[in-house]
Amino acid sequence: MIKHLFFTFKKQTEKDKRLIAAIKNIVGYKPFNLALYRLVTQHSSIAKKHHNGFKQSNERLEYLGDAILGAVVADYLFKKYPFKDEGFLTEIRSRLVNRESLTQLAKKVGINTLLDVDFFQNKYSYKSVYGDMMEAFIGAVYLDKGYKFCHNFIIKRLILPHYDLDEIIENNTNYKSILIEWSQKENKEIFFNIENIIEDRRKKEFQAVITVNGKKVAQGSGLNKKKAEQNAAFKACQFFKLT
Amino acid sequence: MIKHLFFTFKKQTEKDKRLIAAIKNIVGYKPFNLALYRLVTQHSSIAKKHHNGFKQSNERLEYLGDAILGAVVADYLFKKYPFKDEGFLTEIRSRLVNRESLTQLAKKVGINTLLDVDFFQNKYSYKSVYGDMMEAFIGAVYLDKGYKFCHNFIIKRLILPHYDLDEIIENNTNYKSILIEWSQKENKEIFFNIENIIEDRRKKEFQAVITVNGKKVAQGSGLNKKKAEQNAAFKACQFFKLT
Repeated sequence: MIKHLFFTFKKQTEKDKRLIAAIKNIVGYKPFNLALYRLVTQHSSIAKKHHNGFKQSNERLEYLGDAILGAVVADYLFKKYPFKDEGFLTEIRSRLVNRESLTQLAKKVGINTLLDVDFFQNKYSYKSVYGDMMEAFIGAVYLDKGYKFCHNFIIKRLILPHYDLDEIIENNTNYKSILIEWSQKENKEIFFNIENIIEDRRKKEFQAVITVNGKKVAQGSGLNKKKAEQNAAFKACQFFKLT
Repeated sequence: MIKHLFFTFKKQTEKDKRLIAAIKNIVGYKPFNLALYRLVTQHSSIAKKHHNGFKQSNERLEYLGDAILGAVVADYLFKKYPFKDEGFLTEIRSRLVNRESLTQLAKKVGINTLLDVDFFQNKYSYKSVYGDMMEAFIGAVYLDKGYKFCHNFIIKRLILPHYDLDEIIENNTNYKSILIEWSQKENKEIFFNIENIIEDRRKKEFQAVITVNGKKVAQGSGLNKKKAEQNAAFKACQFFKLT
């Protein structure tokens, strides 16, 4: 099924040895199919064209890893919180698994240093490439070792050591209402606007802009309007030193 | 882990026997934990309150099944199309797995007749409840039999017999351009507007409205603007007998 990946088979280089050491460190086992992990380190900005015109990069693995991660975290939360409704489960999952937290995770486990990326192609931001790479890595572990192994890897080696679930659940500070209360007390005119919806093939992102007395003071983005507003409000609260 | 589901243990009724027969027919095996499948048949409109205030319905299973289905189909397409990029894979997955196709699937396999739902609570439409139930059923199979079994069940008993993948991939008719060409030929003024974004906790839906010479002729919805426009354009093409 994954024969095509063996086309890239080659002798182990110094870089491969570093990669194998990193995988052992992160996953706890030696990789079986190293070609998969080599692909994880190939950002599309440096992708080579395959003989048939197809560009080899970590994007396909990212697509797969994203889906596997979603399923594993859904399963974990479902079983951990038997009396919570699906709204709660969905919300906590999106707090655990989003671009920003995945980028942080990539840095915590240290795979970010392995990425081959050309940042001079201005399109790419540091913010997303490492989170994308984290998903690609998960996709590689899934293909290399199967669902059950990958499930354990995600929960025991990524989620439990690097996230404080209780804190994530508790974190319900409503920065928007803090800001509104403050504006009423200080007699300021405040507006929350959704200015942009950035859409790519899989994700939508909203951008909220906050103006106070006609002056733009903060902007924030998020996967829905509410989150975008909360993120913008958080920055505005910091700006006005309200937190 | 899923002990709480055993709280609902009770003697098999006539309804249970029908349910077991249906499961055997759809999945190919007898269920191990019938309580899971009983829950699949409970729409939130008739949900009973649990002793601790928690409402038992198929919504939690739907959340889980949605994630598992996404992962399985992602994996299947990843391996089936080794030289297609992630944009293609994402697009084909969303054509396979969307509310409408899942509703059709539920009817094809016949689980829709098993649902306990109160349609007099006007909030619910036939359109989504059966698709949601299909996802809940997949969630139940996953919990009952594990990932590997569920993977085979989804591919061999749902996708392969009920979908024509080649046709789904071929289906690229661009109704919007058919409509625009027609309007230019007929000297009509045509507008495509995105009027509403309906958002619930997990899904966003766009609504496109098409006006011709100032008169609304069609509307359509979809998970992104392009799809909403295509759906509206398809209806407009039918209205003007262009297809």
